[in-house]
Order: sequence, then structure tokens, then C-alpha cells
Amino acid sequence: MDPVNRQVRLAARPIGMPRRADWRYTEEAVPEPQLGEILVEVLYVSIDPAMRGWMNDGRSYLPPVGIGEVMRAGGIGRVLASKHPGIAVDDYVSGMFGVQEYARTNGAGVTAVDPRIAPLPVHLGALGMTGMTAYFGLLDVGRPQSGQTVVVSAAAGAVGSVAGQIAKIMGCRAVGIAGGEAKCRYIVEELGFDAAVDYKAGDVRQGLRAQCPNGIDVYFDNVGGAVLDAALACLARHARVVICGAVSQYNSTVAMRGPSNYMSLLVNRASMTGFLVFDYAARYPEAARALTGWRAEGTLKSREETVDGLTSFPDALIKLLLGENTGKLVLKVADR
Amino acid sequence: MDPVNRQVRLAARPIGMPRRADWRYTEEAVPEPQLGEILVEVLYVSIDPAMRGWMNDGRSYLPPVGIGEVMRAGGIGRVLASKHPGIAVDDYVSGMFGVQEYARTNGAGVTAVDPRIAPLPVHLGALGMTGMTAYFGLLDVGRPQSGQTVVVSAAAGAVGSVAGQIAKIMGCRAVGIAGGEAKCRYIVEELGFDAAVDYKAGDVRQGLRAQCPNGIDVYFDNVGGAVLDAALACLARHARVVICGAVSQYNSTVAMRGPSNYMSLLVNRASMTGFLVFDYAARYPEAARALTGWRAEGTLKSREETVDGLTSFPDALIKLLLGENTGKLVLKVADR
Repeated sequence: MDPVNRQVRLAARPIGMPRRADWRYTEEAVPEPQLGEILVEVLYVSIDPAMRGWMNDGRSYLPPVGIGEVMRAGGIGRVLASKHPGIAVDDYVSGMFGVQEYARTNGAGVTAVDPRIAPLPVHLGALGMTGMTAYFGLLDVGRPQSGQTVVVSAAAGAVGSVAGQIAKIMGCRAVGIAGGEAKCRYIVEELGFDAAVDYKAGDVRQGLRAQCPNGIDVYFDNVGGAVLDAALACLARHARVVICGAVSQYNSTVAMRGPSNYMSLLVNRASMTGFLVFDYAARYPEAARALTGWRAEGTLKSREETVDGLTSFPDALIKLLLGENTGKLVLKVADR
Repeated sequence: MDPVNRQVRLAARPIGMPRRADWRYTEEAVPEPQLGEILVEVLYVSIDPAMRGWMNDGRSYLPPVGIGEVMRAGGIGRVLASKHPGIAVDDYVSGMFGVQEYARTNGAGVTAVDPRIAPLPVHLGALGMTGMTAYFGLLDVGRPQSGQTVVVSAAAGAVGSVAGQIAKIMGCRAVGIAGGEAKCRYIVEELGFDAAVDYKAGDVRQGLRAQCPNGIDVYFDNVGGAVLDAALACLARHARVVICGAVSQYNSTVAMRGPSNYMSLLVNRASMTGFLVFDYAARYPEAARALTGWRAEGTLKSREETVDGLTSFPDALIKLLLGENTGKLVLKVADR
């Protein structure tokens, strides 16, 4: 075994869009698992918009990544050594392993992954935390009913593409907001959305009005900013707005843009609710069963994009934050 | 009977703060009630922040008041003539009578008022739609639990003062945000709020942090703007933000200020929900019983401020929008 663990550590808190220099690369000895611990060889790292928030100082739902700490990340790996009673060597596991080649962990938050069901990157995407986020956010927070209109932003992205497909599975009209013709075609032609609104091609509010003649019953928001305001202007009565993220605002160097149309919540007796997938941990098995079943029957499709090599991590995250990916973006750390 | 009905009609859509010239005064013959109708002599007109919204063009929960139409308003009056089977001459009634001396109506939305229970202005305030708004907004939308912290903005205003007192009745810690020392003293010393934060005297966020050490469980917002942002920054986990109004923004001549701290909803798994009291019409009797009972036992106090004369209507509304009143502001139209 390579005795060196290559790592990506936070070097500076970014102002605006992160730059490569905001991380540095370190090497240290591969750690030895102690009693109750496992050693994981990290194969894939999940690239998520939330990472940008974890780099900021200040109070949030998780403490910020400290300067000099290994960059926080979800990932999938293979167990190289185990002193944990429930996890065996050669198991594939998913967990918060960080951006590094090897992770030592006591197994908290680690779940088994079955590579026969789907390729490993899918277990970070549609069948992983990404899919769970879409599942609980849409179904538990959004509570769509058959026949209602569900709008999803960043609809060609990892979470949005799953949320829109679940809306279709639930019998809803699914309208996706995405940037560019290719993404709009992808979500309609390949994923089965009923319609797409290209936020780069025209007025989003007009597009939503045209595609949602009865208003929006559930708006699943990943982006914030002007797109959130456009959706608020088109709510149906008793609409539910699900706040999953605000990626358009994460790199803002001025004050975050609040939704100036929020009084639409009053006019339409509507709600706007934030959620975190971690709160649903007790129900992950339920979501995993549903997502796996839909994928097996072909109603849930996914696309994964891979960036190669640990040191490409900054480029991968920047690519994601620029909205240049389609589907789930993962970093391939090792090829086993 | 004076055969002339003096009326206040909308003359222009205001830009920013309304001016007197935005209304004009007309006179017409007092109308004759037809079969199924009543004729009401208006005694008191309710002055409400929502009136400012009704003057704007555009889609909302009610159609805008048309240019040249009698200004929409709730009020209380005495029945002068009745061809309605359920309403008798000399009854006191509450309804949307408009800013005028006499109103003819088919009785839709008209409810009886018992002047022996409380002076007539109280039936527009704590025992009227104002009290109902606080009751349903706080209890049904906010869902406070005993021991939780409830923060109310415009806490010395008509709705806010009732909402805070209901929070106390429910066993909550009630913190009010109000402008100026007199209002802050009023809500603590006379109404029994646990604490007040003077938004004119210092940083609201710091004040809320000091007065809400465990965070805000329910925030009942009447004002929007910077105060809403300060409250969002202090939410407890699973907090409920109740959107009742946004009076700080109604006269803005630039785009409405959205709550830039809305991502606190995600961090704290919190919700922000708008409501309209009209949706609770079927439960008005329940609220009226509760409010009347609390007032009788002394746990719900109220203050009413009266402005005299129909032609003082513009001054009264402007006074309200400037936050210069304490408690319920009413316009006295006739003295009977």
C-alpha cells in the first residue's frame, strides 16, 4: 500500500468565487485504524454546492472547515482495514471522508454501498445523499399532489434532476429551470420534464407564466437570487417553496440578495421552508429503497460527470459553482 | 336624516407615502336599500396598513381600489334601514363599509357587534379583525408552545400588541420590537411583554440576541425590511416566521427589500408563511369568544386612538404609515 495520504486542505477563506490558491496539498502517513475504527481508501469524492458554504466563517448548520483542515466532503471508498465490528475489509462504503486519499473513521455516518446495483458515482448521486436531498425536500417539505405543478431550479443539476423526476413519478407537471439549450433539452427529452425554462435565454417570470398557467404549487429552489424572485411571482395559492440551496448567491461579494417578492407568500397564503437532509437520517433506508426501485424500473435516470485526480478538486468545485456540469459531478481519486 | 352621503374616493395611485391629494371628496344621495339589503350609517372606520396595498395596481389577494371608487375600509355602523331578514334596524354591525358616511350592503361579510361588551372602536381593534388577525396568525400559523420565545414587530401597533399578549397567555416569552421609548415602555409595563427592543435606539439584532438567548421560536412580522432580517438572524431551530405585513416597505419607491438572511430558514430548518385573516372566516366565532374572554378577565388589554372626521382620513392613514399611533387607530365618522 502507498504509505502516503495525499490531502487537500483549506488554505484561505475565499472571497467570491474560490481560487485554486484557497487550498493546499499536503502529504502525511496513512493512518492506522484504532479499535472501533476503519481505514477507507477514497475512490470518489462528491462535489457539492454546499462545500462553498462550509468554507465560510460564521455560524451555520455545521462548523466551518478550519484553515489547515482537510476539506470536508462526502465520498465513497473501499475498506482497507477494519477494527469495527460492523464493517468488513473490501466493503464499499459512503461517508464524510474528506478530500484525501485515505480516511480513518469510527464509522459514524458511514453506510454500505452495493456496487452491483449501480456504478459507484451513482451512489453519490441519484442513489446517494443527492437523491435523498431531492426525495425528502420534494416529498416531505414540498408535499406535491398528483396533478399539481412543480418547478425546480438548477433542474439539470444533481439534486434538481432527481427532484423533477420524482415530481413526474408523483403525477405532477414538472417544469425545470436550467441554463442553456443543451440542459433544457436534456431535462425534457432525456429526463421527461414537461417543460424547461432557459434562464439564460429570456425572462424567467414570463417563461414560468407560460409553462405554469395555473401557477406553481411547489417550487424547489437550488439557486436563490433573481430566479427565486421570478418563481415567487408565479405562486399558486397555498404554494410551498422549498429552500434547498442558493448557489447563485454563494460567491456574492456583496450582501446576499433576498427575495424581494416574498410578500407573494402572504398574497398566496404560501410557505417557504428550509431543510437539511441530515435531519432525515432515520429514514434514509426508505428513500434508498424508493430511489433504487425507480432507477431499476427506468423512471429515474441520472447522469454523472467525472473529474480525474485529487489535485483537480479546486477545478471541479469551481466548475460546479459556475454551473458548467450536468447531473452529478464527482472527483475520481483512485481507480479501483 | 341628512340626505347626503359624503365619501372619500381614490383619486390617484400614490408613489411612496400617500398624500392628501391622492383622494377626493364626493357627495351623493344616500342610497335606498333594495330587497335583501341594509343601509348602514358608518360610525367608525378602521385604519389599517393593508389599505396602502389596496391602493396599488396589480394582482393581489383583493383587486385594487379603482381610481374614482370609494376607498375600501372596514368599519362599524348602525343599521338605519333593513330589507334583510337577519339584520334589524338599530343593530350595530361591522363590515367592509368603505370610507363614507352611509353604506348600502347585502350583508355579505357583515357581523353583529354588541356595544355593551366594549366601546365600538374596540370591536374594530382587539375584538375585531385586528384581534382575529393576531389570533389566527399567531396560533394557527406560528403555533407557539408554552415556554417558547415569541417575537412580534410593530408590537405597540394594533395587531402586534394583541399577538404579544396572546403569546403571554399561551405561556410564552413575549418580546416586542417597537419604535421609541414610550412604545417600548407601554408594551412591557402596560401589556406585560417580557421585554422590548427599540428599533430606533440601537441594533435590533443585538437587542434580539440579548432578549432571546435561546433564539426566536416564533417571529410574527408586521414590518419586513431590516427588522425582518435581524429576526431571521436570530431564529431557533424549527422556527416559524409568520408574515402578517411589511409596513416598512409599503411606501418604498424602489424595489421592495427582500430578506437577505432568508437562508437562515435552511440553516435552522425553519419556515416563513404568509396568511390572510379572511381565510379563517368560518372560525371567527371561536376567535371572538377567546378574545372577548381574555379581555373580560383582564389578560388582553387594548388602546384605541381616534381621529375625528371623514375628511381626516388621509391624515389618519399617513399617521399610521409613519408609525405614529399606539394601539388601534380609528376614524370617527359620526357621533351616535
